[in-house]
Amino acid sequence: MTTLQRTQTEGLEVAVRSEPAVRAYYVQLQTPSLSDLQADAKRVLEALHHQHQIRCSHIDIDVLRDISPSLRSWKWQAQASVRDNEVIALSPWPSRQLGLAVDLGTTKIASYLVDLSNGQTLAAKAVMNPQISYGEDVVSRIYQVIKLPADGARLQQLAVEAINRLVVELCDVADAKAEEIVEAVIVGNTAMHHLLLRLPVKQLAYSPFVLVVRDAMDIKARDIGLHIAPGAYVHLLPNIAGFVGADHVAMLLAIEATQAKGVVIALDIGTNTEVSLLDGGEITSVSCASGPAFEGGHIKDGMRAASGAIERLRLTNTHIQYQTIDGVLPIGLCGSGVMDAIAQLYLIGVLDKGGRMTENHPKVRVREKQREFVLISEEEREGRPAITFTQQDVREIQLAKGAIRTGIQVLLEAVGHSEEEIEQVVIAGAFGTYIDVASAMTIGMLPSLPLARFRQVGNAAGMGAKLALISRSKRIEAQAIASRVHYIELAAAANFKPAFVQAGYLGRYRITHGKRKEID
Amino acid sequence: MTTLQRTQTEGLEVAVRSEPAVRAYYVQLQTPSLSDLQADAKRVLEALHHQHQIRCSHIDIDVLRDISPSLRSWKWQAQASVRDNEVIALSPWPSRQLGLAVDLGTTKIASYLVDLSNGQTLAAKAVMNPQISYGEDVVSRIYQVIKLPADGARLQQLAVEAINRLVVELCDVADAKAEEIVEAVIVGNTAMHHLLLRLPVKQLAYSPFVLVVRDAMDIKARDIGLHIAPGAYVHLLPNIAGFVGADHVAMLLAIEATQAKGVVIALDIGTNTEVSLLDGGEITSVSCASGPAFEGGHIKDGMRAASGAIERLRLTNTHIQYQTIDGVLPIGLCGSGVMDAIAQLYLIGVLDKGGRMTENHPKVRVREKQREFVLISEEEREGRPAITFTQQDVREIQLAKGAIRTGIQVLLEAVGHSEEEIEQVVIAGAFGTYIDVASAMTIGMLPSLPLARFRQVGNAAGMGAKLALISRSKRIEAQAIASRVHYIELAAAANFKPAFVQAGYLGRYRITHGKRKEID
Repeated sequence: MTTLQRTQTEGLEVAVRSEPAVRAYYVQLQTPSLSDLQADAKRVLEALHHQHQIRCSHIDIDVLRDISPSLRSWKWQAQASVRDNEVIALSPWPSRQLGLAVDLGTTKIASYLVDLSNGQTLAAKAVMNPQISYGEDVVSRIYQVIKLPADGARLQQLAVEAINRLVVELCDVADAKAEEIVEAVIVGNTAMHHLLLRLPVKQLAYSPFVLVVRDAMDIKARDIGLHIAPGAYVHLLPNIAGFVGADHVAMLLAIEATQAKGVVIALDIGTNTEVSLLDGGEITSVSCASGPAFEGGHIKDGMRAASGAIERLRLTNTHIQYQTIDGVLPIGLCGSGVMDAIAQLYLIGVLDKGGRMTENHPKVRVREKQREFVLISEEEREGRPAITFTQQDVREIQLAKGAIRTGIQVLLEAVGHSEEEIEQVVIAGAFGTYIDVASAMTIGMLPSLPLARFRQVGNAAGMGAKLALISRSKRIEAQAIASRVHYIELAAAANFKPAFVQAGYLGRYRITHGKRKEID
Repeated sequence: MTTLQRTQTEGLEVAVRSEPAVRAYYVQLQTPSLSDLQADAKRVLEALHHQHQIRCSHIDIDVLRDISPSLRSWKWQAQASVRDNEVIALSPWPSRQLGLAVDLGTTKIASYLVDLSNGQTLAAKAVMNPQISYGEDVVSRIYQVIKLPADGARLQQLAVEAINRLVVELCDVADAKAEEIVEAVIVGNTAMHHLLLRLPVKQLAYSPFVLVVRDAMDIKARDIGLHIAPGAYVHLLPNIAGFVGADHVAMLLAIEATQAKGVVIALDIGTNTEVSLLDGGEITSVSCASGPAFEGGHIKDGMRAASGAIERLRLTNTHIQYQTIDGVLPIGLCGSGVMDAIAQLYLIGVLDKGGRMTENHPKVRVREKQREFVLISEEEREGRPAITFTQQDVREIQLAKGAIRTGIQVLLEAVGHSEEEIEQVVIAGAFGTYIDVASAMTIGMLPSLPLARFRQVGNAAGMGAKLALISRSKRIEAQAIASRVHYIELAAAANFKPAFVQAGYLGRYRITHGKRKEID
């Protein structure tokens, strides 16, 4: 056994001018006297008007609850944070203006603390989404709420508590206070979005999968229990459809989808995989139920991308090369390792095109009535159970990768393009960032195209959330993206069934005029 | 002993067109399908636009939390309650549109349930303000919060819980649901206003007595814990100064102060008495610290206006005539009884102009080193302690009535009018409604004027709250009143001290060119 080098793909960098929704102004107030009895609130509003030509109609009620002792202890100088026509925070001058961006994933919550004055990320932290205890995927969480409506409140609370803890940790890193966070942007898929806001979700589970809210929203942070500046708002990017949410909009925003040249496929691979086809400003999207296999779920020796997971793997008939996360002894396979395993097994002939595992290989054995390929034996693991890849694992991956390839094909046919015309494939998401694109082509998950046409961009949804946090123009752009998207219900597409059948086969192939053509 | 007839003064009736801040619209929605995937929220907003030409930007987050199951159970028909550009409630069609008006007094909370479609009052209920356990007057409550800031939250909670209980009782009477209440208007003096919103109050207690907010406010009912329709707002009328609050604005609104003809004095008598002088659209106001004597406080046998309180009283040298509330055996004297007692004692010569009680009267005796007049003896009460009126009681009333008369005089001098020019004296408030105006003139609390110039209007503050609830124009008018008021700090007025000294004397008198002239 030898070890492979870990290759990390670079994330996105988008240059954007800082023009946040919240702006800070210094105000110098007159000390009240018997001849100047103006109310404290009015004193601040008038100073904004006279000193900055900013007309605000009111000050948030929670800000008013501290205003009088604060202004007096600050000797009648303050920093007013203004959002539209409202003063949403008062702080001593000078104070920082911080923002919080959150990518609320089904599995993981990624958060960023941003300096709104320059767009700089001061700290980044991620945790597992504690809602997992109520179901690994969104559908099980929705069913849980349908079964027991009170769990809706519990699921919301879990997500918000996790974000509140992240805020504390981010502030620790950046030596900041939660009250300095004057704006937040949270993105997630539609179900996560609805569960976070405690919106009804039952109708998301049944055709025609109707959303409660599709448009962008601004709500008071306190209305979901988020502990940042008392008067601050949370901005939620727009959703597209029941299974294409604000996180996909954020991803499209981060890759500057509206300015994309030529035909571009953009994927965010997860339990649910959203795929968009960009073509000269037009955006067409589908959602594919790719399941948990790429996150290590439903795979015998699958695991999440954690310490000890095999994330890269190469096979010959006699040897195995692999690399584990943190370089420690292997425990199982994470998504990218699973994908490498099936690609390698296909390449050395252990799997045929249909995914059937041969019995004529020294490393193939039968356990519990099914064939499995021994990647690392009991002996190599010094007596612990072998790490193997089973026939059933192959079937799971075939379903998952078939769903994604079908999505791409349905999109291409809907807009009348062929695979050769794809100029770029943008792959986002934690899993998408670490997969070996060659392996993905080998198993037929992605179209066979020159490697240079693929771009792995990391957590583009988180990047999109940051952009929307820093820039009001980006929020308008996000709303434009969401309105522009033509959404296709995959299962209802005319060519869905035949496409799905042929997408299940292994091997590199290309679809030309609806016909599968093998590539050696 | 004989019994007097109880005379109840009629309240105000102001004709006003119903034009509430919240309007109801019937919407008929299309059932969603795979070819019509509009989000539930958007479906409502678009129906408002297409069916009623009403453009709303959003639906309140708490309304969204029920929208999907509701619309489906109502078979895609609903009543949308719209306020400005927001949908603040959804209900089955047809539903009632109810409003809540509250006069949050220092001592008593009066509440009214109103049908917003026609302005009709469906139910009225009042309770004692439970904040009394933290102090009888606003100043003691403010000091309590200064001493122990946590009590600010407790005081707010007490007031809101009391209002929430009133809502339940009002709804019981009118067979209504709290969720049918789509708007509330609450008025109170400045301290009550600030305590209700949990705004800082310390600066209200010290010169220059600066308010946190003077302007009218609209806040979400949930932001103070008020349980009405989840998305509903509370409108708070504007304040004028530290000791002239929104309740006085409401009173001025109810008496149509902006349209008053000639010179009018408007008083709301209580622990604190607000007095305004209206003169051709100009409004000048003062606040007088009249103390609790008129509510029965600090008076030996004083009591609140409850069952058994003597509320009317006439004396000769040998006889007493009185009337008690509910006609039961007497327990003590409420405010109007106290005022009658001192007026009658003056008229029969037991008190001199300076308020000194003679010792040469068979009913005057000395107890605990002070003189007291026996109104109802131990024998008449069959062994229970006598009901008496003491020298100290006289002094309390002299201070209280002197403060009010001084306020009136300072106002008249500020605008350059004499008492004869007063065309009307409007007296509001529970106590003001029941007092005998002749007695009030006899003790010199009110200027000596023909009785026909006095108008006792009951709870005008509550009436003003109802007007602001029913009519948006009335809210604009209230804001205009508050901005127009010229507030005079009584203690700082040049003529305060001499005016206060001469205002303490008993007897009918008139001030002409700053000089007191006795009237027989």
